[in-house]
Amino acid sequence: MLKRMNGTTNLKELAKILGVSISTVSKSLRDSYEIGEGTRKRVKEMAEKMGYNRNPYAGHLRNHKSNTIAVVIPEITNNFFIQIIKGAETISQQKDYHILIYVSNDNYEQEASILKHLHNGRVDGVIMSLASNTKTYDHINDLIQVNIPVVFFDRICHEIETAKITTNDFVSGFNATEHLIQQGCRDIAYLSISQVLSIDNKRKQGYLEALSKYDIPFNPKRIIYCGNNAADNLKKIKALLKQKVKPDGIFAAVEKLAISSYEVCNSLRIKIPDEIKIICFSNLDTASLLNPSLTTITQPAFEIGKQAATVLFKNLDKNKRFIPNENIVLKSKLFTRESTTVRN
Amino acid sequence: MLKRMNGTTNLKELAKILGVSISTVSKSLRDSYEIGEGTRKRVKEMAEKMGYNRNPYAGHLRNHKSNTIAVVIPEITNNFFIQIIKGAETISQQKDYHILIYVSNDNYEQEASILKHLHNGRVDGVIMSLASNTKTYDHINDLIQVNIPVVFFDRICHEIETAKITTNDFVSGFNATEHLIQQGCRDIAYLSISQVLSIDNKRKQGYLEALSKYDIPFNPKRIIYCGNNAADNLKKIKALLKQKVKPDGIFAAVEKLAISSYEVCNSLRIKIPDEIKIICFSNLDTASLLNPSLTTITQPAFEIGKQAATVLFKNLDKNKRFIPNENIVLKSKLFTRESTTVRN
Repeated sequence: MLKRMNGTTNLKELAKILGVSISTVSKSLRDSYEIGEGTRKRVKEMAEKMGYNRNPYAGHLRNHKSNTIAVVIPEITNNFFIQIIKGAETISQQKDYHILIYVSNDNYEQEASILKHLHNGRVDGVIMSLASNTKTYDHINDLIQVNIPVVFFDRICHEIETAKITTNDFVSGFNATEHLIQQGCRDIAYLSISQVLSIDNKRKQGYLEALSKYDIPFNPKRIIYCGNNAADNLKKIKALLKQKVKPDGIFAAVEKLAISSYEVCNSLRIKIPDEIKIICFSNLDTASLLNPSLTTITQPAFEIGKQAATVLFKNLDKNKRFIPNENIVLKSKLFTRESTTVRN
Repeated sequence: MLKRMNGTTNLKELAKILGVSISTVSKSLRDSYEIGEGTRKRVKEMAEKMGYNRNPYAGHLRNHKSNTIAVVIPEITNNFFIQIIKGAETISQQKDYHILIYVSNDNYEQEASILKHLHNGRVDGVIMSLASNTKTYDHINDLIQVNIPVVFFDRICHEIETAKITTNDFVSGFNATEHLIQQGCRDIAYLSISQVLSIDNKRKQGYLEALSKYDIPFNPKRIIYCGNNAADNLKKIKALLKQKVKPDGIFAAVEKLAISSYEVCNSLRIKIPDEIKIICFSNLDTASLLNPSLTTITQPAFEIGKQAATVLFKNLDKNKRFIPNENIVLKSKLFTRESTTVRN
């Protein structure tokens, strides 16, 4: 005897009667190319006979299948995040999923509002990087509680149990600073983008470690805390470079602070690399075309995006809503260019 | 006497009783920070007294209010489109709307798939710029037919009746070419990104018109049709610049073709601007920091995004689903830099 649910046969019963898997029934009814024509026909005929009445909207709610994932990024004017999206896209296209891109403008309130907006099943899962002023995580836990899994990349949150894709920020911060020291710098400023973000803290720790290794005394005034206001950042960098004794090296935690440093040097007629050397974390595709070309630590952003999407889909495929803790660490690479070269 | 709607007082009635605007009532009930605490309290108390029972989901369905608009762009690695999004965002934030960003990867099939995905009321309206190989428009008409209005910008479609925001591409193409001629160029190549796109055709027409004005014979071999494959583009530009008689000027229809030209010149050791001058349409924020700094025609992208969103919301506010034809044309600006300078 067939049980009835809301007056109709359900997928499970159809599968049992036909002696095939539920997935085969579901795919046949959706006319998936994965199922042979014969099977599709057989499934459809039995479904009609048994009064199966598919309600796609109900199906939607039941399976949480929006065939969409969200990528939440702090800013869009940053090649790092653009490459992340491109990497995630290669995976989502294979899965026939759409990607929605949400930009938090590096602002906690907007980030929380976006995540709230995602509660209603608009997406099946989320890949995200935190805003630089996000200090509480209820908005993320709430989303996970309604069965929408979240994978972090780069600007991660240690407090939440899930997969996290990062790069070796401490080592890279160390390497960047050591590179400047080896090029002759003895008074190196660190331009920070946030006092809260884990990645910034790690890069700064690497900077401090390198100073210590080379017995260079640490001067707290050489750490410049910048933020999201471009005009403010320019002002702070200008104040730094107008000092009587100015630094001979700059290590910028993010690309935009290096670009601002270039602009300040141009306006103050400070010569890079002769008077000051500059290195930064960056995925700028014009780094080698700048005047002078810019030495960068480049994160494997495309690969990070791919990995984050892969982990997310692995869990979506298994219908797992809680992703176990996993730390995936990829390596960044130092590209030496003119901005840190010693010229004779 | 109060009229009742579905057994509850409506916003309009509440506003009338309280002697405040509907917007104030709505914002107070949503606890908006824009409304003082006293007013919020007064509104809430009256709402409760009058049996106002807000059902946000019902409101959703009735008004097709997803409080979300989509911006569909061909590519994300292009500062022009990034600025468009930022401009649209300033307007959508005022309206308390989210923006979903969709990227078609400059591909008609993906564009059609995205628009189909938007049929289900995920968004209230769409701002879009066409993929460079989009030749048919059924996917757009279908969306408009289900009452989701579409506003075009930049890469527009003349065949569809709605608002279109563009820049003065013909005049800008003319000005760019005339600038090269005035800097001494007599053999100018035009790097095209698409034979289909209206904007590319207009820029090319401007190029041809300027050649004609200065009696410079047109050589069809100087029009290089590039596309979305970066390696192919590099190959085509390399072939152009390896010729025995190579052009003395390049006018690139889009930024990425100018960047590729820089790379080819670097690898072939061709000196910009001494041996060849380069100008392009671009919103690159590092244009002035390149080596040499790049002469650009810069579109008012932020303003275009603002205008497109403004027109869309004007119609959404009036609950208009069909937007009347309107052509808004903004002006681009030429920034002369080293890449087209005559050096002695």
